[in-house]
Amino acid sequence: MNTTVIERIRTRRPLIHHITNAVVMNFTANGLLAFGGSPIMANASEEVGEVTRVSNGLLLNIGTLTETQVKAMILAGRAANETGIPVVLDPVGVAATSYRSEVCERILGEVQPTLIKGNAGELAHLVGIEMETKGVDSTGSGNLEDIVRRVAEKYQTGAVCTGEKDVVWMDGEIKVNRSGHPLLSQITGSGCLLGSLVAAALAVDGKPLENVTAVLRLYGEAAEKAAAHKDVEGPGTFLPRFIDALAKESWGDDS
Amino acid sequence: MNTTVIERIRTRRPLIHHITNAVVMNFTANGLLAFGGSPIMANASEEVGEVTRVSNGLLLNIGTLTETQVKAMILAGRAANETGIPVVLDPVGVAATSYRSEVCERILGEVQPTLIKGNAGELAHLVGIEMETKGVDSTGSGNLEDIVRRVAEKYQTGAVCTGEKDVVWMDGEIKVNRSGHPLLSQITGSGCLLGSLVAAALAVDGKPLENVTAVLRLYGEAAEKAAAHKDVEGPGTFLPRFIDALAKESWGDDS
Amino acid sequence: MNTTVIERIRTRRPLIHHITNAVVMNFTANGLLAFGGSPIMANASEEVGEVTRVSNGLLLNIGTLTETQVKAMILAGRAANETGIPVVLDPVGVAATSYRSEVCERILGEVQPTLIKGNAGELAHLVGIEMETKGVDSTGSGNLEDIVRRVAEKYQTGAVCTGEKDVVWMDGEIKVNRSGHPLLSQITGSGCLLGSLVAAALAVDGKPLENVTAVLRLYGEAAEKAAAHKDVEGPGTFLPRFIDALAKESWGDDS
Repeated sequence: MNTTVIERIRTRRPLIHHITNAVVMNFTANGLLAFGGSPIMANASEEVGEVTRVSNGLLLNIGTLTETQVKAMILAGRAANETGIPVVLDPVGVAATSYRSEVCERILGEVQPTLIKGNAGELAHLVGIEMETKGVDSTGSGNLEDIVRRVAEKYQTGAVCTGEKDVVWMDGEIKVNRSGHPLLSQITGSGCLLGSLVAAALAVDGKPLENVTAVLRLYGEAAEKAAAHKDVEGPGTFLPRFIDALAKESWGDDS
Repeated sequence: MNTTVIERIRTRRPLIHHITNAVVMNFTANGLLAFGGSPIMANASEEVGEVTRVSNGLLLNIGTLTETQVKAMILAGRAANETGIPVVLDPVGVAATSYRSEVCERILGEVQPTLIKGNAGELAHLVGIEMETKGVDSTGSGNLEDIVRRVAEKYQTGAVCTGEKDVVWMDGEIKVNRSGHPLLSQITGSGCLLGSLVAAALAVDGKPLENVTAVLRLYGEAAEKAAAHKDVEGPGTFLPRFIDALAKESWGDDS
Repeated sequence: MNTTVIERIRTRRPLIHHITNAVVMNFTANGLLAFGGSPIMANASEEVGEVTRVSNGLLLNIGTLTETQVKAMILAGRAANETGIPVVLDPVGVAATSYRSEVCERILGEVQPTLIKGNAGELAHLVGIEMETKGVDSTGSGNLEDIVRRVAEKYQTGAVCTGEKDVVWMDGEIKVNRSGHPLLSQITGSGCLLGSLVAAALAVDGKPLENVTAVLRLYGEAAEKAAAHKDVEGPGTFLPRFIDALAKESWGDDS
């Protein structure tokens, strides 16, 4: 392919429908806009199906889920499956409560995701491996390749495990990304925004594994560039520079 | 009048009650505070009437509407109509789904707005003109003056169409504003915040047409100033500088 | 004690469960992360008890309350009381509507807070003293020590009144803090974030009165440092520098 994934995203400007958590909505919308996508966020069951049908991708994030929102997620997910739109599920904090765990299984029983993206603790929980977690953050490590493969096989889906190193599994192939910066873990929603960008990666032409891995790499490189900016003195000043870095026009993207 | 609209806003600090979308609440509150107004955001049907009655203006924004919120909007809107408080309606994404379209008509059947503010696609949809839209963003153009006049006549209201040029229609008169910067379209909620500032413009003394047009001009000029700031390198760093620009004390405001 | 409260917070990284208002969720999460704590925000009645039981502190903030959220607050508050986890109640805008006032009494009838944090108008309202308020902001002054003492006695709780000077009452003792900067009042949620940090202060070892007062002082000093930063030109650029200041590793904290 003669174009890069970032070029294809910026040309198509894929419309991504988000049913996501209330903490990160603004940051996610600004981050996806900067990267080149187009965000829409609707929660009402009366309209989520229609919104999904005009979108190019769907992100489901359970970070502040309620029963009403779960109902909307299932309606949107089914609409996406019916129309062949990629679905990314981010099972935020699924290991934290039995309710999240139950809801996740309920969604996965009704909706076929294209990709499940989570940290090690979340993905491990989905396949019955216990890891140490704290709130919505995973603190453990383990055989990430094995966890990702088991999630992919259990749910017949692509899978991405994010962390110090990111592991991507799609269609029986695996890739690893090692770009990134620790400041990302000091701003809320950095993983949630990545889920949105992964949905954009799946919404444009190209091999999904390559697209997703390239976006993970770009995300980490943007964090590295922002953290190295001379005016960045902590997580507060990192955030706007990170958005700037996501918006940069001339990426060194060779995917 | 010997004072400018920005002076009157900063003297009165009008309290604007927002029933708005979840994506932009924080940005809207910070933007209105910077501009000189005072934000309050309440959604519970049990209290929205009481909140509106102590406010100086009401903003209704349907960006992430739910049935519960629509009920609250109608209660708040009626309270505003009863007490003579200006009401601004922002029909975000009204062309995107039949539900939004139906809800908008329902609100407009129960609440008399002082002003409807939207982009070209949203306003065109309200008066039955089809334009190209993408999610909540309008991508088409057209005879904006005609669209604005038709919205104003159909709903017996003021109307503002925002975009590269802004067109204001109030009480049979029309004004155009051409200040602004493309970076505004790269941050989420820039149109939503403008709705809040327009409500503030209607909440202070002065001719509504002049007040609203002056605020549109100031908003665009603040964006131009922020975009020209030497430390701004993209939408991330533009946002805080834009808030700073809205807060600047010595505006060149001659309205 | 040989460690400071900020050292203890950064060592333990207390997990604080927030049921808070939708306007400030993102800012609160980023602020608590910067300060050294770990935020979690869940609203569903199905899981708030379980989330609270694995947390080290609970913050209840009624800024955009709904009946559903009030139910969740009571469930979470009872879980916290049963497991001995500190509870901070922030009665945002309690004087603004009769509904907020009624809800506050309902929560306080079911949940024993460790500390109630509010501005002068909010705390005065809780003990039947009328003060001038505007929306969710208090504009009056008065005998703050008396108000705080009366709140503490009426609800058998610690109490903090925030404003130009902060007054803390815990276990029959009183302390005053005078650090701070007016720019704090120009960003939305600065009081709400402080409630979160106070919950973190109560979640670590040390005398509660000393911990809370130290955190109030650090918060004000961070605002002073940020406001004095050469690149800060208004509330927009103040905000990221304030988060940076909260994250600074080498605090001059002698508590």
